[in-house]
Amino acid sequence: MSAGGGVRGAVVVTGTEVLTGRVQDRNGPWLSDRLLELGIEHVHTTICGDRPEDMAAQLRFLAGEGIDLIITTGGLGPTADDLTLEVVAGFTSRPLALDDALEQRIADIVAPLTSRWPNLDQEAIAVATRKQAMVPAGATVLEPTGTAPGMVVPALDREGPTVVVLPGPPNELQAMWPQVAGSPAFAAVAARAGDCEESMLRLFGIPESEIAATLRVAEEEISGLDELEITTCLRRGEVEVVVRRERGEERPWRALSDLIARRHSDTLFSTDGSSVDDQVAGLLLLQGHTVATAESCTGGLIAARLTQRPGSSAYVTGATVAYANAAKESLLGVDPGLIERHGAVSDEVAEAMAAGALERHGVDVAISVTGVAGPDGGSEDKPVGTVCFCAALADGTRLPWRLQMPGSRDDIRDRSTTVAMHMLRVLLDG
Amino acid sequence: MSAGGGVRGAVVVTGTEVLTGRVQDRNGPWLSDRLLELGIEHVHTTICGDRPEDMAAQLRFLAGEGIDLIITTGGLGPTADDLTLEVVAGFTSRPLALDDALEQRIADIVAPLTSRWPNLDQEAIAVATRKQAMVPAGATVLEPTGTAPGMVVPALDREGPTVVVLPGPPNELQAMWPQVAGSPAFAAVAARAGDCEESMLRLFGIPESEIAATLRVAEEEISGLDELEITTCLRRGEVEVVVRRERGEERPWRALSDLIARRHSDTLFSTDGSSVDDQVAGLLLLQGHTVATAESCTGGLIAARLTQRPGSSAYVTGATVAYANAAKESLLGVDPGLIERHGAVSDEVAEAMAAGALERHGVDVAISVTGVAGPDGGSEDKPVGTVCFCAALADGTRLPWRLQMPGSRDDIRDRSTTVAMHMLRVLLDG
Repeated sequence: MSAGGGVRGAVVVTGTEVLTGRVQDRNGPWLSDRLLELGIEHVHTTICGDRPEDMAAQLRFLAGEGIDLIITTGGLGPTADDLTLEVVAGFTSRPLALDDALEQRIADIVAPLTSRWPNLDQEAIAVATRKQAMVPAGATVLEPTGTAPGMVVPALDREGPTVVVLPGPPNELQAMWPQVAGSPAFAAVAARAGDCEESMLRLFGIPESEIAATLRVAEEEISGLDELEITTCLRRGEVEVVVRRERGEERPWRALSDLIARRHSDTLFSTDGSSVDDQVAGLLLLQGHTVATAESCTGGLIAARLTQRPGSSAYVTGATVAYANAAKESLLGVDPGLIERHGAVSDEVAEAMAAGALERHGVDVAISVTGVAGPDGGSEDKPVGTVCFCAALADGTRLPWRLQMPGSRDDIRDRSTTVAMHMLRVLLDG
Repeated sequence: MSAGGGVRGAVVVTGTEVLTGRVQDRNGPWLSDRLLELGIEHVHTTICGDRPEDMAAQLRFLAGEGIDLIITTGGLGPTADDLTLEVVAGFTSRPLALDDALEQRIADIVAPLTSRWPNLDQEAIAVATRKQAMVPAGATVLEPTGTAPGMVVPALDREGPTVVVLPGPPNELQAMWPQVAGSPAFAAVAARAGDCEESMLRLFGIPESEIAATLRVAEEEISGLDELEITTCLRRGEVEVVVRRERGEERPWRALSDLIARRHSDTLFSTDGSSVDDQVAGLLLLQGHTVATAESCTGGLIAARLTQRPGSSAYVTGATVAYANAAKESLLGVDPGLIERHGAVSDEVAEAMAAGALERHGVDVAISVTGVAGPDGGSEDKPVGTVCFCAALADGTRLPWRLQMPGSRDDIRDRSTTVAMHMLRVLLDG
């Protein structure tokens, strides 16, 4: 199925630092969500380094694939390797010219930013400003949200794609987005797009092959299933089933959703797009609980995840990262004899850590984790990947879990964080 | 300059979950490093969803751009949307056929993995196994490191690109990589590649425009500079200058490195590729120190970053995340009067938190952070982005810092973590 009324979009990410992975791209995913909202089908994302010929080749490829809207990110900065506008100007056959008024507006933005450094090269700043004020003929200027302006550049012959040129820093790009909709060339493309919806089911504690089997059953049982675009993926230990469809095509989606709920009632935890983080936050707020974590191998990742959410200070009091055994004893009151008898990675110590967090932080809810994240420290009895958890309530309720996880140190720490979130969910959801 | 002896490589990332950003791609960056090591120029990364026609279009584009080696990731799983091998078989005109022995080897791997779930659909597992054992004629099979095998698929006519097909999970992909080098088709491409080197300079506390000015000076002063491929980027508050060159081209690189060191001696902190994390770990180990963190707005991110490193238990004892004021008082001994007089976000409370961490954790080195990460909680006096730090030694040395940071809640938390690492570096480096 091809969602989106036939209007096709693509994202071109520029920057050698992204191509080579020194910087993670956050713009492609964010823009993908915007395209979905507009009913534009996101077909390709391409990444190139700071070489104009490679970016030009990607633009030509996308035009050849019938892409209607190309959004470029990055390459608008002051250094000589920032070449996006030159390439887009060439691609659309629209010559660049200096916009004097824009140059002045950029200069006004830059002045206070550079004043905190003494002895800056003022000529260098002027050159950088002038470079950023070059505009392709006929383009709509998007006012800077950092220092660089963006542009909407219409196809010269109304046949090729419209190109939206946005800055690389995600906060600047996101702040600039509302201006994009106001440009006539963009609005013309968006008006042709259809209306598309996305739904998601999330499951925890199930292999992907089980979902594959259910989808094969669905193909046999549900008529109209081919009107849905269904993708599944395994992500941080959860299986996500994402369904895209034209707005209004409710019946096959409902039938699929019901089938999955029937076959996987024990592992399906979200049908409304909510993440486990959303659910834990909602349960804590609803029940008026406060929470603290006691972490060893995750080293603070669970607390960092809980506090990532705005407003989390309403229920998170803090965390004790007790990486060393001495810290487990002094900061969480874990009995040294327990560590000696059972080892620091044990159900017993996990429970004592959770009890310690309840008491020392004075909270209603605690989650603890102690494990062997590797690459060293494993034993025959407790190999790398052995992780013990305990979720605890102040009323004495204890939910222990012990897992053997595959993967690298990063994988084990990350997966443990997800497991901890699910244990909190199960503990609070009764 | 075109590094890499003219051999050009590209990465094709498949998966709607990556295209739409629900999963972050970690393979493109990792493979980029492998290509660099082999002296193969990484030109493009493209990302497509689980639609065979889009992947086929990307492969044709890359072949048309003269790419010699394409590495695909993902799309080898058991579900119907995993279509990579069918597309690659079509692209290389090599028909798929079942490899019986491979089917058996995959079945042997899958059996123990699925045994922990009761009541699995055995026919579903058999179908999934058979799907993953389909091999393009003439391809080299790479043995599974998870459940899916990889392939090296040579061009049928020796004219097009060689395609290396790898699984999507990063740990499987990385574990499979050593087998790739053993395949004759891959070895033939790699043998044609040149020998390339990359160096990196890192600076902290400087705007990118200053480096741009220095690079313009370098263009005038250094002959042979155009033999270097120079890229700069701003990353998590640091400026990185990356230089790629043919091995042996030492003179222009040395001259550039010297020029930057001369003009930016106060902000250049790394010339050997080491990160601030490497340097802090090295200093702590060398000086025999132990460290703890006291975190409010970063919520455990500094501790998580310190403990991300294998072997960090040699110097990290733990952390106290004191998100609530009561936690700052009870767990770090911060005087309630101090919070009342100066506010929780203040130089005074930051210092008291660091002192509390030194004492409660019994360590030599502590770093504290308290700030307004937003989006709420800002005031005229202390707007969102106000963050106070204190790095402290047990001998009484205190290094305070107060910053006003731009960006989102995530940006402020992440940037604060980087600032904390640099403060530890400066504190320990004297």
